[in-house]
Amino acid sequence: MALISPEDLDDLAVGAALLGTGGGGDPYIGKLMAQEAIREHGPVELLDLYALAGSMHVVAAGMMGAPTVMVEKLPRGDEAALALRAYEAHANRQVDAIIPFEAGGLNSMIPIALAAQRRLPVIDGDGMGRAFPKLEMETFAVYGVNPAPLAMADEHGNCVIIEAITPASAENLARAVTVRMGGQSQMVTYGMDGTTARRVAVPGTMSLSIGLGRTIRRAREARLDPIAELIAFFAGTHYEVARLLASGKIADVERREQGGWSVGIVKVEPFDRTQKPVTIQIQNENLLAEQGGSVLAIVPDLIVVLDVDTAQPITTERLRYGQRVNVLGVRVPQIMRTPEALAVFGPAAFGITQPYVPLQP
Amino acid sequence: MALISPEDLDDLAVGAALLGTGGGGDPYIGKLMAQEAIREHGPVELLDLYALAGSMHVVAAGMMGAPTVMVEKLPRGDEAALALRAYEAHANRQVDAIIPFEAGGLNSMIPIALAAQRRLPVIDGDGMGRAFPKLEMETFAVYGVNPAPLAMADEHGNCVIIEAITPASAENLARAVTVRMGGQSQMVTYGMDGTTARRVAVPGTMSLSIGLGRTIRRAREARLDPIAELIAFFAGTHYEVARLLASGKIADVERREQGGWSVGIVKVEPFDRTQKPVTIQIQNENLLAEQGGSVLAIVPDLIVVLDVDTAQPITTERLRYGQRVNVLGVRVPQIMRTPEALAVFGPAAFGITQPYVPLQP
Repeated sequence: MALISPEDLDDLAVGAALLGTGGGGDPYIGKLMAQEAIREHGPVELLDLYALAGSMHVVAAGMMGAPTVMVEKLPRGDEAALALRAYEAHANRQVDAIIPFEAGGLNSMIPIALAAQRRLPVIDGDGMGRAFPKLEMETFAVYGVNPAPLAMADEHGNCVIIEAITPASAENLARAVTVRMGGQSQMVTYGMDGTTARRVAVPGTMSLSIGLGRTIRRAREARLDPIAELIAFFAGTHYEVARLLASGKIADVERREQGGWSVGIVKVEPFDRTQKPVTIQIQNENLLAEQGGSVLAIVPDLIVVLDVDTAQPITTERLRYGQRVNVLGVRVPQIMRTPEALAVFGPAAFGITQPYVPLQP
Repeated sequence: MALISPEDLDDLAVGAALLGTGGGGDPYIGKLMAQEAIREHGPVELLDLYALAGSMHVVAAGMMGAPTVMVEKLPRGDEAALALRAYEAHANRQVDAIIPFEAGGLNSMIPIALAAQRRLPVIDGDGMGRAFPKLEMETFAVYGVNPAPLAMADEHGNCVIIEAITPASAENLARAVTVRMGGQSQMVTYGMDGTTARRVAVPGTMSLSIGLGRTIRRAREARLDPIAELIAFFAGTHYEVARLLASGKIADVERREQGGWSVGIVKVEPFDRTQKPVTIQIQNENLLAEQGGSVLAIVPDLIVVLDVDTAQPITTERLRYGQRVNVLGVRVPQIMRTPEALAVFGPAAFGITQPYVPLQP
């Protein structure tokens, strides 16, 4: 039985924020929540996706809301447990394991905190293989799992259960509730059995995140180039291809709250002044990196903004003028690049007209 | 056992629209829905509030949304039954009787249609004694009943269940969901036992509505003055005091959709040109009638706009420039005028600074 260690949490915070591609919440807040829950309730087992018993009842958990709100309004800590209790009472069944609904600094940690509180295992995998801005953008939904019943809770103790007929309706209703809950909510959704979870989840993203964080930490300790080390690390995973897209200074950040998301454009001026500026389009997450009208990387592939000096990933809400950054592109695994997956979270799903072209080495 | 007759439905449509004071939905649409459900499923028993067995489980039902939306988007007909099934499945109990959550052209009828579909009795009473724009403005809430669990459904088959910690939170969350459901939703809420219902409901408002409609119909048949007949009829009920506030022509209608409500101001120019114009302030319902800076009638008392020629009440969404109207004021029963009731749905609850003064004869 693999337990998540305190050192794992440090590495996971960094690595999950990297997979979060700007979204998925603040890794520092997430780490504190998971540390606190483990301190109080004991260690959490990280369960391999393929070790799940077919009859186990799995639910996805995480926080919905604009990342910028999450920075200003900390979770109380028991909202996710309240949502889980509401789910169990409504569905009239016990939950056996928790899976993150996305990978991200906060949303990889909340399931750990919840698992600690309820003494359940957390599954090594998630439903996005990164972070996405909409609840229907789940491999769970792509491969046929219904988000209903979906349970939400806020820090006041209000709960809402949504039995929607489609994932898009669930997103639409849950987003409105999230806005009224003050811009963030804790959510339990996509209940499924273990057999289904093995088929529809992106495997290994928790241990991948821990490995990414560890790679950055060790590269810094050994004074190696973290970007080169990350690219080498990705090559040994099912994400395989990673490439440095740009190095430069953030010259402009346009960002606003809109419909429960943070949307905007970030402009990076390359240190190499002969290169054209790089723009990154954002909806909670980084969606499209372009340079002089050419696509460098495009959703669902990862576009990660990392601090040049610390190699820490920078989430959307922490982007600032003047930051010196590396922009890393990462190709996502095959389960996220099928035609049915691209129909749900390919460029067109974000109103982006450029076609998806997988990142080349 | 008192069954609701087809003639009762005709009279109820008119009388409930009158109690609706501009809100509560279109009486014509409501009548069609109730007629259709009774034709298909058989007649509905109107159960005296005080005949309710203490152990019966009662729920309030009705539609939430801006009345102007209801005119443009007809209910499919089975949304309320879907909400009731969601309520029963969630609460894990059978419902024994339906009570309207407000009195209104549509919202007195929907519980009848639902009762017919489910072969349940409908209770002679409601939770507002009129119509109000917010879900927490219920005598149920005033006297301690929790709206949770609240079940909502839309015409696509989406259901949402809200377990809110306060009636105001339930309103806040349900309103956001209603907007996303296309501006209207069908709702089942305020579950309670019969003993509680007898204590917290406004009694007799269904039979009162039928009596009001009958009074208008018979006055017109007998060529009597419907306003005088209505005032005389009210005198024999627990509403007691009614008075003609103004007779004139609608000179201006300002009305807009805002936050899921229809809000606005209506100006009536009296036929008697020596009188000053009367203004009526609206939030779904008519809230305040003023003339030359003096209050003629103020919420929770009823302010009813009736067509001069037909004596039919005119709902908010059907008010038009040039209509010739009588404006009737009606004092509400004591259960709606207690300090705790006025704290929830007195003038201050609508941002109106003038104090409540009960309508004088």
